[in-house]
Amino acid sequence: MNEFYQKDIFSIKDYTKEQLETIFTYTDKIMQLSLSERREICKGKILGYLFYEPSTRTRLSFESAMASIGGNSLGISDITSSSTQKGESLADTVRIMSIYSDVLVLRHPLDGSSRFAAEISDKPVINAGSGTEEHPTQAIQDLFTIKKEKKKIDGLKIGIVGDLKYGRTVYSLLHGLGNYDVDVNLISPESLRIRSDSTYEIKRKLDFTETTDIEEHLDELDVLYVTRIQKERFPDEEEYLKVKGSYVVGLDMLKRMKDDAIILHPLPRIDEISADVDKTKNAKYFEQAEYGKYTRSALLGMILNENSF
Amino acid sequence: MNEFYQKDIFSIKDYTKEQLETIFTYTDKIMQLSLSERREICKGKILGYLFYEPSTRTRLSFESAMASIGGNSLGISDITSSSTQKGESLADTVRIMSIYSDVLVLRHPLDGSSRFAAEISDKPVINAGSGTEEHPTQAIQDLFTIKKEKKKIDGLKIGIVGDLKYGRTVYSLLHGLGNYDVDVNLISPESLRIRSDSTYEIKRKLDFTETTDIEEHLDELDVLYVTRIQKERFPDEEEYLKVKGSYVVGLDMLKRMKDDAIILHPLPRIDEISADVDKTKNAKYFEQAEYGKYTRSALLGMILNENSF
Amino acid sequence: MNEFYQKDIFSIKDYTKEQLETIFTYTDKIMQLSLSERREICKGKILGYLFYEPSTRTRLSFESAMASIGGNSLGISDITSSSTQKGESLADTVRIMSIYSDVLVLRHPLDGSSRFAAEISDKPVINAGSGTEEHPTQAIQDLFTIKKEKKKIDGLKIGIVGDLKYGRTVYSLLHGLGNYDVDVNLISPESLRIRSDSTYEIKRKLDFTETTDIEEHLDELDVLYVTRIQKERFPDEEEYLKVKGSYVVGLDMLKRMKDDAIILHPLPRIDEISADVDKTKNAKYFEQAEYGKYTRSALLGMILNENSF
Repeated sequence: MNEFYQKDIFSIKDYTKEQLETIFTYTDKIMQLSLSERREICKGKILGYLFYEPSTRTRLSFESAMASIGGNSLGISDITSSSTQKGESLADTVRIMSIYSDVLVLRHPLDGSSRFAAEISDKPVINAGSGTEEHPTQAIQDLFTIKKEKKKIDGLKIGIVGDLKYGRTVYSLLHGLGNYDVDVNLISPESLRIRSDSTYEIKRKLDFTETTDIEEHLDELDVLYVTRIQKERFPDEEEYLKVKGSYVVGLDMLKRMKDDAIILHPLPRIDEISADVDKTKNAKYFEQAEYGKYTRSALLGMILNENSF
Repeated sequence: MNEFYQKDIFSIKDYTKEQLETIFTYTDKIMQLSLSERREICKGKILGYLFYEPSTRTRLSFESAMASIGGNSLGISDITSSSTQKGESLADTVRIMSIYSDVLVLRHPLDGSSRFAAEISDKPVINAGSGTEEHPTQAIQDLFTIKKEKKKIDGLKIGIVGDLKYGRTVYSLLHGLGNYDVDVNLISPESLRIRSDSTYEIKRKLDFTETTDIEEHLDELDVLYVTRIQKERFPDEEEYLKVKGSYVVGLDMLKRMKDDAIILHPLPRIDEISADVDKTKNAKYFEQAEYGKYTRSALLGMILNENSF
Repeated sequence: MNEFYQKDIFSIKDYTKEQLETIFTYTDKIMQLSLSERREICKGKILGYLFYEPSTRTRLSFESAMASIGGNSLGISDITSSSTQKGESLADTVRIMSIYSDVLVLRHPLDGSSRFAAEISDKPVINAGSGTEEHPTQAIQDLFTIKKEKKKIDGLKIGIVGDLKYGRTVYSLLHGLGNYDVDVNLISPESLRIRSDSTYEIKRKLDFTETTDIEEHLDELDVLYVTRIQKERFPDEEEYLKVKGSYVVGLDMLKRMKDDAIILHPLPRIDEISADVDKTKNAKYFEQAEYGKYTRSALLGMILNENSF
């Protein structure tokens, strides 16, 4: 019996390095299966999704992951704007959805929402993004991408650039990286630095430096993880425009990086990475999206199947 | 050949007690099948849904029921707000949808809409709620729940509380109960009493008393069926607030009921039943939702399969 | 290996008569298969759709076509109104969607959008309507319908009536008909005549006459293809009302047509064809919708399967 069978996925913090490696091994297995073998893994199983924040990309990644292993998906893609909300509590919605499905995928603005849901749900709950810090399946996808593309995670020097204050993706990735022996360089404008209340916990597991200057460690990086900077986050537009330009990853910047450095991005991208980078061998953000499909197939497969496949 | 094969479902009034019992027997059979056996029942069949009123819960119940017996669902979940409406007639929409699917599930504000649809559709039509009175699959779900939880329907004393005037669920349930030898107590504020034009027809089949006082027969009830009371239905807020409080089912009220009485609710619930009731052995509304999945699987299976399964 | 395997579908102009006939032959084959044989064709394959213009009917036709051959569909049904758009480029959205699916179905207001998408997508792209002129799968559906109902296309006299200026369906059909030896009569109000920039190209392949008077050639037509006239297209309402009435196909008009003439319409219809025509043997627009499901199943099957089925 695999240890993830019928288990929830709440937080990347819950996983040891060993467990992450088990997930990666399962993902590799799924990728090696023929399409018809894959289709048997969750044949006839139902994924129920509840998105209290719309996230088309995450939802479609789960739907595609589930379809490719033979399962179906159904649910509500934008509850808050749904005319059907009718004031029902999260608890009741989760309870009903758990009746209609074999595994529940929940996106919710509040911290702890998926743990709360799991107390109510008869079926395992997967956190598809919650609160300020948690997006465990994204972190697993990101770590797997680094592992596949760099053949290792330990020993790497990893830069993370953009809005580090508001992106839950960044926090989840940092907590995930905390299991590995990596050197992290956080690059952001002063006003979008990683939150100090999170710094303490992350510092215990991970060595990181902070800078506003993307050039500072650029030539040493093995991985540059780029995130969006949203205009709305800035107090005034001028500061936004100044910052925005300086963090755009283009061919020029790429030239100053290691030849085998890789560029990642959780997507959607607006213009943080210029389109001419897409064709370089360093651009791995679309591979990252594809690995996300496979890691989600693996997680769903492990949760819904007692035996390793 | 089963008698429901390729037949429409318009109204709970069309069914005899015997037919209802046949549906219940099929539902029991489905519940006993293994998941892989279930999946064969409607393998590759397509359910097409047309919701002229949004009802996420009913739609998902049908989708889940269809998925668990191997079929697919597609359709339009909110036609009225759809930018694609383009002024097409119900007749044409039904006709097209019947081309794209093997069975049609229709939710529509008008009485008689599903009968009208069936005249046009090549495929059987299931009424998923129409007009003021009809919601046959909900009534079947409710009756099946009572049967399963109380082991019988005949001889029971059943209270129905809340907005009895505007809820089609209540009318369908009453007509369904008309096939059984039950004692019904209708509990509602004066302004939300069951409509007098319906009373006559129901009276012919069913003994019921009316009261505004939920306490009146509380200690005799075997089943208490709770429905929402919507603020908008009241002429002034004060009356609403007065009424609302007095009909909330809580642990206190439960204590004054029979030990083995069951509480039902078509859901979604707002606050007509307090959350602490959920964990009591009397609360059966989530079981009711689950039975709804199975009764719908049974109906779909019988309609789409010539032979009993 | 079939010549459509892993190929895109951009424009009806790309197909020779021979290729169209191959598609028709495949469609016939699909129609003759048993339901369980059909279900094997695209078993476990995923269709990803991106609709930058909502078109429920086209989307459902593809979904139904894919479901009936065993595949799944997922995607975004109305990107422009989606709160999830977040400013992502068409290129990135296409790229991601091509990761999540085996074939991409794209509806987009711009000419050339599907060719652009195909440069980015790893998976074949099907144009489900783009720009002013292209709707190749609709044209294939229309040609197949004519072939099935009239047993031939060559030698027919075909009238096309309505808004010929703005309907991409009409242009695609005309280009498709350009492969056959047909006589075309275009009937429209002066202000909604086919665009002169398109006339030149079509004229090289097709003989057509233009008229504002639907009666002019009515008694000679084998096929009358009716399209909607939208009020918004007219400079003033009076002209609209005058025109609108004169082009309505009713029983009277039908009497003046050949006994075996057929009436087609891409649907949705508003009131260009009166409802009493529906029951005549001449009305073939619902058959046309059904053939659309089969032609799309055939196209998807050929694109996703190396070998003829």
